[in-house]
Amino acid sequence: MTVAAATISVGDELLAGESLDTHGRTIAEALGDRGVRVVSHVVVGDDVVGIEQAIRSALRRAGLVLVTGGLGPTLDDVTREGLAAAIEQPLVEDPDGLATIERWFAGRSRPMPATNRRQALRPRDAVLLENANGTAPGVLWKGSEATVVLLPGPPRELGPMLDSVMDGVLADAPPRPRVVLRAHGLGESDAASRIESLMERNRELPVATTVSNSIVSARIRGRSSDDRALVDAIAAEVESAWAPYCFGRDADSLPHVVGRELAARSLTVATAESCTGGGLGAAITEVPGSSEWYPGGFVTYANERKVADLGVPPELLASEGAVSASVVEAMVAGVRGSTGADLGVATSGVAGPGGGTDARPVGTVWIAVGDRDGVDRRRFRFPGGRDLVRNRTVLAALQMIRLRLLGESATLLWEWSESGDGS
Amino acid sequence: MTVAAATISVGDELLAGESLDTHGRTIAEALGDRGVRVVSHVVVGDDVVGIEQAIRSALRRAGLVLVTGGLGPTLDDVTREGLAAAIEQPLVEDPDGLATIERWFAGRSRPMPATNRRQALRPRDAVLLENANGTAPGVLWKGSEATVVLLPGPPRELGPMLDSVMDGVLADAPPRPRVVLRAHGLGESDAASRIESLMERNRELPVATTVSNSIVSARIRGRSSDDRALVDAIAAEVESAWAPYCFGRDADSLPHVVGRELAARSLTVATAESCTGGGLGAAITEVPGSSEWYPGGFVTYANERKVADLGVPPELLASEGAVSASVVEAMVAGVRGSTGADLGVATSGVAGPGGGTDARPVGTVWIAVGDRDGVDRRRFRFPGGRDLVRNRTVLAALQMIRLRLLGESATLLWEWSESGDGS
Repeated sequence: MTVAAATISVGDELLAGESLDTHGRTIAEALGDRGVRVVSHVVVGDDVVGIEQAIRSALRRAGLVLVTGGLGPTLDDVTREGLAAAIEQPLVEDPDGLATIERWFAGRSRPMPATNRRQALRPRDAVLLENANGTAPGVLWKGSEATVVLLPGPPRELGPMLDSVMDGVLADAPPRPRVVLRAHGLGESDAASRIESLMERNRELPVATTVSNSIVSARIRGRSSDDRALVDAIAAEVESAWAPYCFGRDADSLPHVVGRELAARSLTVATAESCTGGGLGAAITEVPGSSEWYPGGFVTYANERKVADLGVPPELLASEGAVSASVVEAMVAGVRGSTGADLGVATSGVAGPGGGTDARPVGTVWIAVGDRDGVDRRRFRFPGGRDLVRNRTVLAALQMIRLRLLGESATLLWEWSESGDGS
Repeated sequence: MTVAAATISVGDELLAGESLDTHGRTIAEALGDRGVRVVSHVVVGDDVVGIEQAIRSALRRAGLVLVTGGLGPTLDDVTREGLAAAIEQPLVEDPDGLATIERWFAGRSRPMPATNRRQALRPRDAVLLENANGTAPGVLWKGSEATVVLLPGPPRELGPMLDSVMDGVLADAPPRPRVVLRAHGLGESDAASRIESLMERNRELPVATTVSNSIVSARIRGRSSDDRALVDAIAAEVESAWAPYCFGRDADSLPHVVGRELAARSLTVATAESCTGGGLGAAITEVPGSSEWYPGGFVTYANERKVADLGVPPELLASEGAVSASVVEAMVAGVRGSTGADLGVATSGVAGPGGGTDARPVGTVWIAVGDRDGVDRRRFRFPGGRDLVRNRTVLAALQMIRLRLLGESATLLWEWSESGDGS
């Protein structure tokens, strides 16, 4: 089966740029996992005629139309009316739907405002779809040649409904096997050239790569559940071509993977941060249960703190500067000494926008990771503004921890070793 | 002048949900500041006919059409061809444009790939627009009744071009006065009810509110530069109705405002973090120059670190628990003592998803802010998952610092004081 889908997001706040429309992407991803291609996406305001026209136009090009937003209780919310006009059916009140909404309010000991009654309306031949997280039911209309689904706009209501809606309207297009591999520390073109033959468009299952927030991803999608083994085999090829940069799959993040590797070895890591200001500790503790491998650390933003909390010799700071190999190495020694953690990690750099010099331009960052066997010190020159430099420092530090745990060595993107500055 | 605009984002990766389309919002905001309303936004794939149809359809409803994406050098990039088809003009090579592209590569000592020559193409009666950050020039076509602008998709290329393009095509619609006020610590409905009369739709300049990431914003837009004084007067009314929660305007963030208030008083603050894991220090150091008011702090994720680094008495941890008023107060005393900072701020809570109890459910967080005059200790119960609880803790801590500096007292959203648990 090949279905084409068209998606519509409804909301004045989206058109005005006051809110960001993320539903187009959410739904396109869910459809893509089932092999359904989105052929158009449109944003329209809270306006009956505009919604009606958008649905009519979508029905001309797709067999499945998904509309989000405009199902609230107020008079501004007119997506129901837009659908009724597009398919030329009257709106009727659904008694079961009304009872469900009344129960929703009763369960919260609140009276149902009169306007919420509108949420039980549906075109005559449509059915309502249950919404466990709000009062707006979805609406499903199946015509002879096409299906239209209306879904609520709030993400915490839409998200939980999406899977069951997909199962319902795409029963003959179950989710297809999919693997996304995640890598850090190699550039996009390097990543692509390592898997060039796997990316050729005329292959059975071509691999597609994207880069976002310094993470390179490779996506492999099967055409049906029969492709499971092929998808896994291609994923293994990518993993091997991207070793040792490839750190995980699907929802894996570097903090999760580093936590897993530490926990598997019953090791702990402590942080000594300067330019990241606590961002590395915050990343490590994103992971539930991180107290198992992370006792804590020090934010030594001022040099006095590096001396007082980590025992960095003041003369080293004076002679080498805070952004230097010797200082991050001393920070690692200090944080390991005072916390007793198995590993220590330290960051010190020029995040900008000010503070750069010829020898240490903005973006220069030293990162050190050490354990009882030694210290890995690396200098980076990260491109981008202050936020990007700091985020990239956190990711590089996590990847350095991971590589050290695995006993792998690999040069990371933006490492800067050509001159002899203290390294 | 009232112009209506239509926007189009081009890219297969947007339709497939692999990338998030943010240009619709960026451009709608820029247009809104000039009083231009966006009447439709469409996402189409990298397909000549689809782009042509989208431009034709947009021209039927709007006098200004802005298209982003699909101006790259590869054969997939066909937005130029789509425009040429929609306005029925041949594409011609622009000699100046070609020279600019050649200079771009020469300046980087790289040979120009042959495919980049395509980027100098434009419809016969169109002109190219300079792109200082990439090889893809924009394209501007002015017909008798409408204008179409093509702009490059990469945000770091689009962003810098947008202002000058707006100045060019909307010379008679200069940016209008606008103020956005930012508040933290009061709920959206509370915020709205405090300015109810200002929000009435039939007012001259109605105020619109939005909430994002726990920050409530009020937007006031003038109709022309004559409204400057009126906009300022309304902004002052909102500010006063939202006092003391209103912390700034426009691009102000809590870390910036707290930094400004500390710097103005020549005071410093140090952090003692448990559940935020470094996120509070990372927020404070988002601000360039924050070393002026932030020496650093401690991430005491494990209780042993609270004892060792901050001198929290072990018996206090045993009797009260780490998530308690006494412990955050002791953390503040510890961090002020060891760093000598004027203010200390401490966080300790149950970020979840595990670790909750009946007395301290997930989302329970104690925050303390202290100086030589005393300590402000507050208990919160933040809704949401782990990330939200931690982000909300950081914002509440920053607002508590600000209120203490200003000598203001106000209960913050999600404060939880009904029971006597240690408070």
